[in-house]
Amino acid sequence: MKAWILDPAQRGLPLHVRIQRAVRQLILDGALDAGSALPASRALATSLGVSRDTVEAAYGQLHAEGFIDRRSGSGSFVAAGARRLGGRGTTRRSPAAPQPLRLSQRGASLYRNGGIRDFPAPRPFVPGVPETRNFPLATWERLQRQVLKEWGSAALLHSPAQGVAPLRSAIADYVNLERGAHASAERVLVLTSSQQALYLCAHVLLDAGERIFVEDPAYHGARKAFEAAGLECVPVPVDAEGMRVDLLRNATPSARAVYLTPSHQFPSGATLALQRRLEIIEWARQNQAWIIEDDYDSEFHYAGRPTACVQGLDPHQRTIYIGTFTKSLFPGLRIGFMLLPAQLLAPMTTARTLLDGHSAPIPQLTLARFMEGGHFGAYVRAMRAIYCERRDVLATLVRRHLKDFVEPRVPDGGMQMPCVFIRDIPEQAAIEAARRAGIELLGLSGLHARSKQANAGFLMGFAAHAPAELEVAVKKLAQVLRGLAP
Amino acid sequence: MKAWILDPAQRGLPLHVRIQRAVRQLILDGALDAGSALPASRALATSLGVSRDTVEAAYGQLHAEGFIDRRSGSGSFVAAGARRLGGRGTTRRSPAAPQPLRLSQRGASLYRNGGIRDFPAPRPFVPGVPETRNFPLATWERLQRQVLKEWGSAALLHSPAQGVAPLRSAIADYVNLERGAHASAERVLVLTSSQQALYLCAHVLLDAGERIFVEDPAYHGARKAFEAAGLECVPVPVDAEGMRVDLLRNATPSARAVYLTPSHQFPSGATLALQRRLEIIEWARQNQAWIIEDDYDSEFHYAGRPTACVQGLDPHQRTIYIGTFTKSLFPGLRIGFMLLPAQLLAPMTTARTLLDGHSAPIPQLTLARFMEGGHFGAYVRAMRAIYCERRDVLATLVRRHLKDFVEPRVPDGGMQMPCVFIRDIPEQAAIEAARRAGIELLGLSGLHARSKQANAGFLMGFAAHAPAELEVAVKKLAQVLRGLAP
Repeated sequence: MKAWILDPAQRGLPLHVRIQRAVRQLILDGALDAGSALPASRALATSLGVSRDTVEAAYGQLHAEGFIDRRSGSGSFVAAGARRLGGRGTTRRSPAAPQPLRLSQRGASLYRNGGIRDFPAPRPFVPGVPETRNFPLATWERLQRQVLKEWGSAALLHSPAQGVAPLRSAIADYVNLERGAHASAERVLVLTSSQQALYLCAHVLLDAGERIFVEDPAYHGARKAFEAAGLECVPVPVDAEGMRVDLLRNATPSARAVYLTPSHQFPSGATLALQRRLEIIEWARQNQAWIIEDDYDSEFHYAGRPTACVQGLDPHQRTIYIGTFTKSLFPGLRIGFMLLPAQLLAPMTTARTLLDGHSAPIPQLTLARFMEGGHFGAYVRAMRAIYCERRDVLATLVRRHLKDFVEPRVPDGGMQMPCVFIRDIPEQAAIEAARRAGIELLGLSGLHARSKQANAGFLMGFAAHAPAELEVAVKKLAQVLRGLAP
Repeated sequence: MKAWILDPAQRGLPLHVRIQRAVRQLILDGALDAGSALPASRALATSLGVSRDTVEAAYGQLHAEGFIDRRSGSGSFVAAGARRLGGRGTTRRSPAAPQPLRLSQRGASLYRNGGIRDFPAPRPFVPGVPETRNFPLATWERLQRQVLKEWGSAALLHSPAQGVAPLRSAIADYVNLERGAHASAERVLVLTSSQQALYLCAHVLLDAGERIFVEDPAYHGARKAFEAAGLECVPVPVDAEGMRVDLLRNATPSARAVYLTPSHQFPSGATLALQRRLEIIEWARQNQAWIIEDDYDSEFHYAGRPTACVQGLDPHQRTIYIGTFTKSLFPGLRIGFMLLPAQLLAPMTTARTLLDGHSAPIPQLTLARFMEGGHFGAYVRAMRAIYCERRDVLATLVRRHLKDFVEPRVPDGGMQMPCVFIRDIPEQAAIEAARRAGIELLGLSGLHARSKQANAGFLMGFAAHAPAELEVAVKKLAQVLRGLAP
């Protein structure tokens, strides 16, 4: 037993806990039979070189847990029934080899799907990661202190599943003014992320086996969420004006929903033309289908104001608008939202309580103040100018250093730039070689359902790195590609 | 148009946005035909009594969004294709009545399920709500400032889907020492709540239509999560030693998993006996089934140390241990976790990324310090003494003021006390009358699958209120019950 007590795996545990565990193990393994007497605590203390109190503490816990009986005057005995059952030698220290894993079918399908890979450390060109070094953290902390001072311990309690009222109001005001939406606080459902919004839409609106139109190419996070929900993703080609909405009319069978990124199509960057917006609203009305509008980085549009969202143009309440603060503020915030048709508010809120209850109130209340105080608008404006410069810098750098390999498709907005190979370079090999050099690229062909080969290339996120950092990384990438080009 | 611009619904929007929306509406509704000329900006400005710049800003945005064409020298014209399609009089202001709502079958089933109702304001006797007024918020804020100072903007980025490493280590140390678990940081998956853990277990481990054994009576949040996942909940009776594990052996067909609250069975408060723990481990081994161990408020045990968890006794890696900081710290924190068998780590983490990506890093890093610095242990010890006193106070108050109506079943641990009617009082009426008096009770019969009538009564949460508050509420409840008793 002494050896076990000194086992390095037990380091950090107090002595009495180690003794208790050691005795427990001997009993579970059947080394100490039911009814057999344990050493007197004084004797064991002497033999182990510890105080008697330590052994008494161990015995007390063993008694409380039902491993031993204590009879006053006659000592401690191993309790009946405390032995591990069916053990056949399977002790803690030599456990049987685990059986092959059997997940549920849907669990296995989720696992195969691969999930959404996020990058905690923003290496150059990871798409979708914002710059956080300019964030006014001191202001944020000050507002949070105000929240805690005013709300006190009430800010620590459960908060409403729909989201706190001040944040829902601030979000409604923002999307009304900046996104041309038709919103009210009553129709906003606060979530942890746009991923959670996609998950809810996929499950609450569609059943497994039903069809959803998705852009081709498409945002992989959305496609994976839909596939994980058992939906059939029907790709619809994208051109310079966004999704080819005209193709929806003749698709047979039709779909229950369409997923769109109208502001800056992911990954092409195309903006959905007004006429197509109106056509898709009419399609949804005729088919009683849902439009899932993912407005993920619309704040960052560099050529005039961004086009108003589809939701604001839809009088039929068929559009679910999804927004997030992951890009416009910071990913660690974990606040996104849906702007819902009135009919969907209660079903979506109910479903959300089953997923994870509600969102943390302190960040919600802090964000509400950040928006009400004008800090959000000011920060987005400042970052828009910074990201616009970085987009231009990256375009120049790509044209200068990568001109032998790729052609950049400079977007009007957003945080990433697609670059298409103009020579026969193997995409996967390029991505892997870049990763070894500390650069993360997202392959374009994997985002396409059709014409993968014609669209080989990669997406370059430009938001999280300053011009000098972009330059270093582009030069490094040029070296990588030079090593691969035929 | 002037009337529309002055519409109170447009209040708060800048003038140029209101003008832009008014013109947009006229175009969408077909009141302005494609090709028709808009008034010159100077003329419109005069007629509306606004500056020409304001009108120009509105026209500029309409142009950017594709609603109008501007030809230099000849003015602005309504663009072709900007008219709302198939509108037939369905304008924004008189939308067609929405169609009957059609959710997916699973969405409808989630909605019917009713979700988990949380109470933002802790009215007396809401179960599961901790006291937050004693929480050392100043210490928490200090630790968070340290985190932000040391991590800076890196704390704002995405964090690993499995949870930040320091928190996983702190959790592993805690459950090893305090809960007798067999844990390592590598096997901890940080989540937003135990509700999220239950959701993941239900979907990743079982398919719709499969069976899961649940305690009878059972925690409603778990049962709802399982039912929402399409599982068949098979109730297994609970007695003074917890679930009647002996009944599992002969149940046909068997189940893929069992859900347990071994520390303090919800709602009965019973602790699962050691022999039954060993039996259920053996059952899981033989059936290759999963044990879902929900250790939701084990920190609060008032008679000696709590019994070690099932996970620590299971050498076969069939147990999933679920813990949460909702009860031990505060509900608004949104941090729970699973301690997983090695085989399940990757599948569960992957599935979680599809649900909502990852948990917020700042609270995780702050909590890690709170635990490492010994604040967590000290706080739990302090609250254990407070809750123990409140339990005793409530038992005394119930025996004094409610003795004509109910019999309290004083638990050894946890945060709530079941009280069973000893007279023929209609449970639902009592709950509703209490709610009108500002008191929230959870009915016991709804938690039972069988013998609902014999178990009529209510659960009284005692953690969130001080003795004097409990007394006021119990006296009020006595009045309520007096009005209902036959």
